[in-house]
Amino acid sequence: MTDGIVFDRITIIGAGLIGSSVARAIRRGKLTAHLALADASAEVIAEAESLKLADSYHASVADAVADSDLVILAVPVGAMASVGAAMAAHLKEGAIISDVGSVKESVFKALEPLLPSHAHLIPGHPVAGTEQSGPAAGFATLFDGRWCILTPPEGVDEGALEKLTALWRGMGSTVEIMDARHHDLVLAITSHVPHLIAYNIVGTASDLEEVTRSEVIKYSAGGFRDFTRIAASDPTMWRDVFLNNKDAVLEMLGRFSEDLTALQRAIRWGDGDALFELFSRTREIRRRIIDAGQDDAKPDFGRPHEN
Amino acid sequence: MTDGIVFDRITIIGAGLIGSSVARAIRRGKLTAHLALADASAEVIAEAESLKLADSYHASVADAVADSDLVILAVPVGAMASVGAAMAAHLKEGAIISDVGSVKESVFKALEPLLPSHAHLIPGHPVAGTEQSGPAAGFATLFDGRWCILTPPEGVDEGALEKLTALWRGMGSTVEIMDARHHDLVLAITSHVPHLIAYNIVGTASDLEEVTRSEVIKYSAGGFRDFTRIAASDPTMWRDVFLNNKDAVLEMLGRFSEDLTALQRAIRWGDGDALFELFSRTREIRRRIIDAGQDDAKPDFGRPHEN
Repeated sequence: MTDGIVFDRITIIGAGLIGSSVARAIRRGKLTAHLALADASAEVIAEAESLKLADSYHASVADAVADSDLVILAVPVGAMASVGAAMAAHLKEGAIISDVGSVKESVFKALEPLLPSHAHLIPGHPVAGTEQSGPAAGFATLFDGRWCILTPPEGVDEGALEKLTALWRGMGSTVEIMDARHHDLVLAITSHVPHLIAYNIVGTASDLEEVTRSEVIKYSAGGFRDFTRIAASDPTMWRDVFLNNKDAVLEMLGRFSEDLTALQRAIRWGDGDALFELFSRTREIRRRIIDAGQDDAKPDFGRPHEN
Repeated sequence: MTDGIVFDRITIIGAGLIGSSVARAIRRGKLTAHLALADASAEVIAEAESLKLADSYHASVADAVADSDLVILAVPVGAMASVGAAMAAHLKEGAIISDVGSVKESVFKALEPLLPSHAHLIPGHPVAGTEQSGPAAGFATLFDGRWCILTPPEGVDEGALEKLTALWRGMGSTVEIMDARHHDLVLAITSHVPHLIAYNIVGTASDLEEVTRSEVIKYSAGGFRDFTRIAASDPTMWRDVFLNNKDAVLEMLGRFSEDLTALQRAIRWGDGDALFELFSRTREIRRRIIDAGQDDAKPDFGRPHEN
């Protein structure tokens, strides 16, 4: 983990779960001399101030980015273009612009034409989060042991990339460099489609005639409740993810549905061997995720069992 | 919680996660004078003995059930008939026969014709479990605060039902009486279909050409890892669930797929309002599950965040 100042002045736009966690992680590592924080909501910025998340607080993006060496956009993917337009004329010469969005190609395409040529645009995505939202939900250790994927364009300034990499390492992440299009495909299957099917089954379950909603809630410990966690994630953020990673999501969703149809057919025709084969194979993936330190080995996610 | 002897002698057939947890919960509450445990696997029964889970250990089902007032079958749903056939002639007059299977109508149909008319068959299903298997994975508090659904047939002996209810209360559960067919429909949506789609997405993710399995594992913290927990559940048990609850699972799966197709269309045509509406609605269900004490409110299931 890097420790000590990486950028003299950093601005974070957006003080939600991720933005506020970035702020806390930067201050934990003392990675900047001045941290400026902006949010479009007066309520959110007041909450951030009462939590003492930064050195200065700003309602205006133009104000917040002035003199900053690094600007991190922590807003929903659909808001990147309007924030980019508002800050473009006020950026410091040679400033680095990055973000934390879950989709990378569309963010680059939205920001690139708006920014001055002296700025260095390097999109990023820390693969971490919880189902909660807002400045109070963030915490300094959110990125520890998690991957941060940077998707620099061809011909990126190597010095700028190195500094941004050092910052994420200072926040506890392991940094991976990836092509933006490949990022969007990988995340479609590891994050976007899982969220979509979680939202979907929670919707299906709440719309039944023969099974009441209170029965669904009472008996959710049979498996359903695991899906409700990610189906409680921020609606605006996720709407924007699906609208901005359409091609990759539709591709992965097509495969998921094809496989599900095959399973459905195996159930209809009583093909127990096909079911058993898949159900045995999937155990191995879980084991590897735990070995890789990306989840907890305790049964039931370590949920407390009351006595 | 009931405390003290409910049955003089209880036999549990099957010493896996659930059977061994029932054994522990019965002994915690001192709910029987003698607990007999049987398992078809010599290795499993030896492990159960070394864990001191019961008062006597049996390789033979006939042996194990002799003189027992209650026999609980904790074997995969597909094994109920063969266990029922093996024990039928050896049951004590007026013995109560129950089980812990996740499907209820087919268990009743499998056992009912095999049992002597003096026996009382009352199927049951504790809605609790973890992704782990075997006698060492069980624990005494597994059923605390969870529902146990009993599905007695029409004309059930009320005294037998009362005693079985008292036993489950003594193990920490809240008991609900339900029609077997309705149980199978409720569990299809709260448990069986969630397991199926979790198994399915883990299968889809491990079969991609453009995204490697190691990328899936590295970036699983974006949502995928939640699905791998239930996709690591016992393959034999789950194969049998799907084969034995075919109609209800196919019905619920049909609804799920229909809803997913509508979401897919919303993504393709950029209908952000439809996405936002669903994603907002699903948050409420999560809140109600936490309010009902069926899940933990801590973000990320309270997974540890390393420092």
